Parts: sequence; structure tokens; C-alpha cells
Amino acid sequence: MTILLVKSGGPGAIEEWRAAFATVRPDLDVRWWDDPSVDPLAVRYALVWAPEPGRLKTYPNLRLVISSGAGVDHLAGDTMLPDVPIVRLGAPEAVWRMREYVALSVLHLHRLWHRFAANQRARVWDELPNPEAPERRVGVMGLGQLGAAALDALRPFGFPLSGWSRSPKALPGVRCFADMRGLKPFLAQCDILVCLLPATPETNGILNAETFAALPRGASVVNAARGSLLVEADLLAALDSGHLEAAVLDVFETEPLPPDSPLWLHPCITITPHVASFPGRPARARFAAEVITAFEAGRALPNLFDPKRGY
Amino acid sequence: MTILLVKSGGPGAIEEWRAAFATVRPDLDVRWWDDPSVDPLAVRYALVWAPEPGRLKTYPNLRLVISSGAGVDHLAGDTMLPDVPIVRLGAPEAVWRMREYVALSVLHLHRLWHRFAANQRARVWDELPNPEAPERRVGVMGLGQLGAAALDALRPFGFPLSGWSRSPKALPGVRCFADMRGLKPFLAQCDILVCLLPATPETNGILNAETFAALPRGASVVNAARGSLLVEADLLAALDSGHLEAAVLDVFETEPLPPDSPLWLHPCITITPHVASFPGRPARARFAAEVITAFEAGRALPNLFDPKRGY
Repeated sequence: MTILLVKSGGPGAIEEWRAAFATVRPDLDVRWWDDPSVDPLAVRYALVWAPEPGRLKTYPNLRLVISSGAGVDHLAGDTMLPDVPIVRLGAPEAVWRMREYVALSVLHLHRLWHRFAANQRARVWDELPNPEAPERRVGVMGLGQLGAAALDALRPFGFPLSGWSRSPKALPGVRCFADMRGLKPFLAQCDILVCLLPATPETNGILNAETFAALPRGASVVNAARGSLLVEADLLAALDSGHLEAAVLDVFETEPLPPDSPLWLHPCITITPHVASFPGRPARARFAAEVITAFEAGRALPNLFDPKRGY
Repeated sequence: MTILLVKSGGPGAIEEWRAAFATVRPDLDVRWWDDPSVDPLAVRYALVWAPEPGRLKTYPNLRLVISSGAGVDHLAGDTMLPDVPIVRLGAPEAVWRMREYVALSVLHLHRLWHRFAANQRARVWDELPNPEAPERRVGVMGLGQLGAAALDALRPFGFPLSGWSRSPKALPGVRCFADMRGLKPFLAQCDILVCLLPATPETNGILNAETFAALPRGASVVNAARGSLLVEADLLAALDSGHLEAAVLDVFETEPLPPDSPLWLHPCITITPHVASFPGRPARARFAAEVITAFEAGRALPNLFDPKRGY
């Protein structure tokens, strides 16, 4: 029996993983990462999120690693990765999930649901009049596949849309800005800023005090990219000074977000646990099963990680 | 000077109303409802929400009443309404606001943001895997202008859509059910139920224990119609038994929602203060100014209230 070892979602998730794989690859023996009855020699495939460094190296017959998330930065700390193909999650559902997440976050901030939530806890009934969509300018940083899909999801609501990217792009109905010279003019016209940039040395800490100061007073921010892009202390300062209105955060400098983080209980911050573009387990199992089947058939693998490029 | 008397939004709102009217009808003297310096004889127009019964009758030269909301049920208790035209708010922005509200509510429930909000308060990091949009069936009760617009807003997200109405309707990409015989088959396939029905004797209490029992286990409910449609005690029972997952409520049996209502602090209920389709004050001022100008020019008035029909 071929073993697929899973580290994703906590020990309680293994039954759901088994059920998901049963419908697409019932021949696989799907086991939890810390199952003591696993024979290390029988492990052929691993579907993982943030495995302990060195652990994958302990399975001599491991042939293929599949990341349970879109990024592979959670594997970067492992200097003893086995010399086998590593595939990034590429389920098409991930793009759909991000469309939903961006539309939900922007509408949440636009309609002041962060304030209604605080009012609900205080049993306060207050209509809080607020601008219509044509007076709420939404800007997206990062105009790749996810950024373009997010803008598609926002377009029908009538928000004036803009976008910013390193290299010039053109998107229908979107005012496009590019490179560092275009950054401040872009920010100056964003009432809601959505960050979907990739994590690179250039984007590290790009959501900082200077960036927030360039936004109009009362602007709000969504970070659904990577935690390394946001300087959390600068965000807290901009919220507490009243310059920024609110933030929706899906990613953090440290994940899981530590219990003592001041972000948790800040009244202007809405937190989700790195799920923005996360497909459900059935969708991820479908993708992993397709990759394993392609590997066994000797076909080319999608989304292959290239350690030299870093993604 | 022609006085426009305003009762909408609380005494603090009058400056915002004045600013809004200043851009469209600067000649009007816009006064707050309880302004002691108002000369009752100079009041020609009233823009009101839930005025005290009998009060409108005290302005002998009142020529026109405009409701500050889409409904006129807030005027129904006044048996001494003056014999002047009464116009329902008909700002086109109201339909756009409802599109936003329904998309926001459905995405909020679909992505389990009610649970993430509770987890945030408890500083709990848990991904809570959940189904993709194609596995989340959304049904809308009421297929008039608002229902059709709401379904348009949901369509791009890939939810399987259905609708229910008293008389048979056909909408593209929507599985349509009609009349009381179609109600239970409709409910049986709704993972998220959105109520946009008008308040009539037939719809009174239609969201009750029997309706909830006909929904699949784990379903969620949005009421953005009128509070009279929902039996609040039945909703609480269905949530507490675990049959229903969550609810988003914009309207209530009593408004403002009384401070001692058990709805306020229920962890599965998201509350907004009757703002689903509420346009901002500038949009309402634009509409009211257009109605007043049409009235003065002797032109036909839009959205005229007919006391015989009741709307």
C-alpha cells in the first residue's frame, strides 16, 4: 500500500482528508503526520504545510512533496529538504476563494461592518450613514492572476477601481499605476487599499508608516498577501491616531498569530487565520490526486517549485 | 423662506442634511424636527421617518410628505395624516445598497466570518475549512426589483441560485419556485436563505419554526426585508438547537432593537440597524429635492403612496 502522509489542518482533520481522497484516489493509504503506526519506508507522497525542518528527509522512499498552500515559504526553513519534486498548491478554487475574500473584505469595510460589530457588542443602534460605492475608491496592489480576479469581483459593485504593480499593466475599467514613482499617486486616491503582492525582498514591509500616511485620512486596508509585507506596529499607530479607519488582515508577521498580539482585540481590526485563498479540503485533495496521478504516469507536473527562483 | 422639516437620523444629523440639500436646493430652509424656532405656518415640506402620530397634522401649510425610507409602514400608525401627497423614497441607490448588503451577508455566512469573529475575541486561530461556492446553495425569497438585483450580485461568485415568489417568475440561471406548494421544496435546497419579501398579511411571520425546520441542517438565514416577517423566538430556538448555523439580521420586530433583546449578544447572529438598502443622506437629499422640484412644477410625482393599496 502506498502511503500519503498528511500534515495539514491538525490531527482532527485526517478523517476529512481520507474522505476527500476516497472519492478521487481510493487506493492511497492516507495517514496523519504523527500516526505512530506509519512505516517510514512505505511513505511515497507527502501533502504538507509547515513540516518540522528535517522531518521529510526521514522518509527514504519519499518521491513527491505537495504543499497544502499556494506558497512554499513554509518549506524555506528546511535546509534538509529531500531531493524530490515539490509542487505548490494550484487548485483553481484558490483564485475563486480570493475573489470572494476581497469582495467580502471590501464590502465589510465599505458598509462599516467593523463598526456595527462593535456597536452590536455594546447593544448600540446607530445607522452610521456612509458613502455610496461611487464615492468609495478601491485600489489593489498586485495585478497578477489574483489581483485581476479580485478587481473582476469588485467591478459590478460600482467602486471606482485602480491598481498598482511593479511593471505597467492595463486592465479594463481600472486606473493603473506602476513602479515606485506611481506608488504615492496611487495611494493618494485609495479609500480602501487591498494588498495582493507576492512576498519578495522588494515588497518586504511595503505596508508601512510612509505608505499609510500617503493614503487619504479615513482609508482602510486589507492584507491578504503575506504577513511580511505589513509592518504591524505601523498599522496599529495609524489606526490609533485616527488616520486609518480599519483593517482586515488574513496574514501576519508570525503565524499562527501569537495570543499576546495586540492585533487580536483591536476594535478596528478584523482577523481571519490565513484562509483568504484557501480552498476546502476536497478541492485540495482533487488537486493533489491529479498531481500524484501525473507523477505516476511520468507526465509533467504543474506548479513545480524552483529553489533557485524561490517560488 | 420655504421650510423643509426633517425627522430622520437623530438631531445630530441636521448639519449633514443641510449640507446635502445645499448642493441641490440651496433655497430650502432645512430645519430639524424639534427646532423650537420653526414657524409652523412656514413648513411646506417634510422628510420623515416614523414621525409621532398626529404631528404632521399640526402644520397647516404642509403640501408634501417624503418618507426617508423605502417603506411607508412607519407612517401607518398615524390616523391623522394630512391629506397631502406622500412619496416613498425611491432613490436608485437603494437597489445598489441592497445588492451590496446581500452579497456581503451571503459571503460573510459562506466564509464563516461570524465564527472567525467569535474566534478573534477568544484569540483562537482555527482555519475552519468550509465548502466552496458551488457546494453552497443560496435561495432568495422575493423576486421583485430587489430580489432580482440581489441575485445578479450573487451570480458571479458561482453559488447555485434559486428563488421563491408568490407568483411564478423566471430569472436567468435561477431555479425558480412559486406559491405555498413550492415553498418547502425551495427551502429544502437552501444552504443560505435570503428574505427580501414585502411586509404583507400573507408574509407576516413567514420565517418561523416550520420554515427553519424545512431548511437543511446547518443552513443560515439573512433577513433584510421587514422585522414582521421573522418570528425571533423561533430563530433563537433553531440556532440554539444547532439546526441553523447563523443569521444576519437587518430588521426586527421592534426597532430600534431593545437593549434587553437576546438577539444582541447571540454568538451566531450578526446585527445591522435597518441599513441594508439605506442610501446615504446625499442620495436621499437628491431624491427629495427632485420630488419637491417636480411638485412645484406641477409634474407627476414618483412612488406615490396609495393608502388603499397600503404601499
